[in-house]
Amino acid sequence: MLARDLAPDRLATDPRTLAAHATDRSGARSDGSPLAVVHARRTEDVTVTLRHAHALGVPVVPRGAGTGLSGGATAGEGVLVLDLSGMNRVLELSADDQLAVVEPGVITAELDRAAGAHGLRYAPDPASAAISTIGGNIATNAGGLRCAKYGVTRDSVLGLEAVLADGTVIRTGRRTVKGVTGYDLTALLTGSEGTLAVITSATLRLRPVPVATATLAAYFPSFEAAAEASYAIGRAGVEPALAELVDGPVLHAIDPELRERGAALLVVQCDGAGAAVEAEVVARLLTPLATTVEVTDDPAEAESLLAARRLALPALERLGRPLIEDIAVPRSRLAEAARSIRAISERHGVPIFTIAHAADGNLHPIIVVDPDPDLDRLPDAAWEAAGEIFALALRLGGTLTGEHGVGVLKRQWVAEELGPAAHALQRRLKEAFDPRGILNPGKSL
Amino acid sequence: MLARDLAPDRLATDPRTLAAHATDRSGARSDGSPLAVVHARRTEDVTVTLRHAHALGVPVVPRGAGTGLSGGATAGEGVLVLDLSGMNRVLELSADDQLAVVEPGVITAELDRAAGAHGLRYAPDPASAAISTIGGNIATNAGGLRCAKYGVTRDSVLGLEAVLADGTVIRTGRRTVKGVTGYDLTALLTGSEGTLAVITSATLRLRPVPVATATLAAYFPSFEAAAEASYAIGRAGVEPALAELVDGPVLHAIDPELRERGAALLVVQCDGAGAAVEAEVVARLLTPLATTVEVTDDPAEAESLLAARRLALPALERLGRPLIEDIAVPRSRLAEAARSIRAISERHGVPIFTIAHAADGNLHPIIVVDPDPDLDRLPDAAWEAAGEIFALALRLGGTLTGEHGVGVLKRQWVAEELGPAAHALQRRLKEAFDPRGILNPGKSL
Repeated sequence: MLARDLAPDRLATDPRTLAAHATDRSGARSDGSPLAVVHARRTEDVTVTLRHAHALGVPVVPRGAGTGLSGGATAGEGVLVLDLSGMNRVLELSADDQLAVVEPGVITAELDRAAGAHGLRYAPDPASAAISTIGGNIATNAGGLRCAKYGVTRDSVLGLEAVLADGTVIRTGRRTVKGVTGYDLTALLTGSEGTLAVITSATLRLRPVPVATATLAAYFPSFEAAAEASYAIGRAGVEPALAELVDGPVLHAIDPELRERGAALLVVQCDGAGAAVEAEVVARLLTPLATTVEVTDDPAEAESLLAARRLALPALERLGRPLIEDIAVPRSRLAEAARSIRAISERHGVPIFTIAHAADGNLHPIIVVDPDPDLDRLPDAAWEAAGEIFALALRLGGTLTGEHGVGVLKRQWVAEELGPAAHALQRRLKEAFDPRGILNPGKSL
Repeated sequence: MLARDLAPDRLATDPRTLAAHATDRSGARSDGSPLAVVHARRTEDVTVTLRHAHALGVPVVPRGAGTGLSGGATAGEGVLVLDLSGMNRVLELSADDQLAVVEPGVITAELDRAAGAHGLRYAPDPASAAISTIGGNIATNAGGLRCAKYGVTRDSVLGLEAVLADGTVIRTGRRTVKGVTGYDLTALLTGSEGTLAVITSATLRLRPVPVATATLAAYFPSFEAAAEASYAIGRAGVEPALAELVDGPVLHAIDPELRERGAALLVVQCDGAGAAVEAEVVARLLTPLATTVEVTDDPAEAESLLAARRLALPALERLGRPLIEDIAVPRSRLAEAARSIRAISERHGVPIFTIAHAADGNLHPIIVVDPDPDLDRLPDAAWEAAGEIFALALRLGGTLTGEHGVGVLKRQWVAEELGPAAHALQRRLKEAFDPRGILNPGKSL
């Protein structure tokens, strides 16, 4: 019995804890209350839990801070929740090898802060960095603002320790930046949303804090003009550290005065030894297309330029319940995608607010509506609009989800993106990892 | 029958073609002559070939230009060779989306050249770029000089079309830089050495050609001093585009006069808008440790500084048959690795020459001996030394192979690096892709 093999403080079954572990930040509802919550503190807690669950065929939902936006951590009737937020030690930080070894419950921003003491940083910066865990970031292959230049979470994961469904511990990858022995299990586990194994430690790449940073904020007469400006940056061969696009309705939701400055805002940051030179090039490119362009190399001022972008989600949450989509398209199709999203919004009569990581072609169209008060679910028009946004992404050669993951919310569209042959193959891989199907069933694939 | 389903020019069984397709550049011998060679020109040639081979249980060795250094493309008795070098079209090159779609037989340097016409480049630059194919680069997850800053082949592969062992065509990944729908099959196939599927097309990321480049060459009184200098670059937060280290014996083999200038050469290249500033920082760091430091921003002069590094392998080939190892260690262990390699060389009485990608901790210790004339195989002392080099890499937290792949030459050490649980899991994945085990049997795992 599980309770016998775990320390008493590890297992909780009180209704309050169960309720708190049934959902995540996606707003997706679970179909009931989980069976119990295991608060793991060590890898052994994970192996013991999985060994029992595997023997009994009990479904297990691994969970970090529960900040996921796709419902990957929702846990319903009969499910055992494996909460890893208490495994939160930074086990090693090597400045010489520019790497850290951490447990999965470490908060992303805390690792970044710890690295900062050595002149280093953890490059991936999902918007949730202050509240999300490294384990959750790896499970969803989280993106962020800086991945324009520094890549997604996968690009910073060198190796993992993980526990398979039957309790077997495996180690993947290594402490070196290069290595090709065997198949790339590290990349396979990254983004697998807790369906293949439970991550118990990660060896992560750190990078030097850039010696200089220059930030630009430019307002444009239309989203399309701002998108064209972002193409011009790419064509000029500049690789910005971030390029964030905020549309007019979002600007209005943040502050009506911002909306008066333009119908779209593009914030661009260049960093490294060439930051000032690159920012000058970018300013020259944006000026003929923009209404106003501001440039600064002062960190505090840069932060205030970025503030509008950071305030977007809280501002929208004041208007209703946001359904945050996450499509990515080839970046030259950004303007076309935005135009089509506006048409979808009008057709279905649902307001859609759009922010985008422009350099990645990653758009977050945010549908903001109020749930039906009787049913506590979003109206059909919202889901129909979401379905059309996904279809649009695929039609443009893109994807359903650039960085948030599939979870439960996008699952019905996965087969279409993957195609039947790759989908069937992915199911066979899942079986090779988890033959009894106990790990996060009903998510991702 | 296969001959009936393929165009007549696709199938060859003449002894000369068979002999030419039995080995690769590793020097590894095959145990006999392959059955036949299929010269694929289209994806359909691959699907037809695999469907027949799968039905009959005939082993298939996929092959590009045969430039591999680990024996991954050797083909022995009873094997069908699937030569993809004739699938060599660049299908698309999009400057706006900074990507190319290519067939697997495209020569790496030719793609880079085609991208250059648009101010772009294909970042991975294995030393074999002028003769190796993109398909082979992906199969081995090839590295190169520039991966110090731009990553390995995997970091430039956005998506693949591949044919499974039974002839099923799958598509993986996408045309966007971000995307997390489903498991990362693109990364799983990259580096799988032809054991999981046959790649028939690849969507590759291109990057802007840097606006500026600055190159430094510094000679040092010892390999250790040069390694220390490379650590200093990392500690200063500079990320060079390349950092190549050449030891004294290699310098001597290239030109005894070079050896008189120092016991080790470090060539560092910085690129981008901050290249000159970074090179200045690097020069300041190297000067107190080096005998001489030269800096240039002239491309022709940079090429002559890099020439010594490029001449290393041809120079060693004049001395005997080189057995090229490829270990990677955490980069702060570079000096320790070199010291231990010298001790191994002395203990076994075999000359070992070392070049290294210093920023990646990737060393190529090259054992140069003459094969036993009676047996046409390397003497036991060479293999014993190689075994000790692998053990050293693992002891330092590194890997058997940073960028060349396992092939047949390193296979006996794989299980030790992966550990039994991950090794067993990898075999289950192989079965999920290729249940009859026809794809490149006896390689990699």
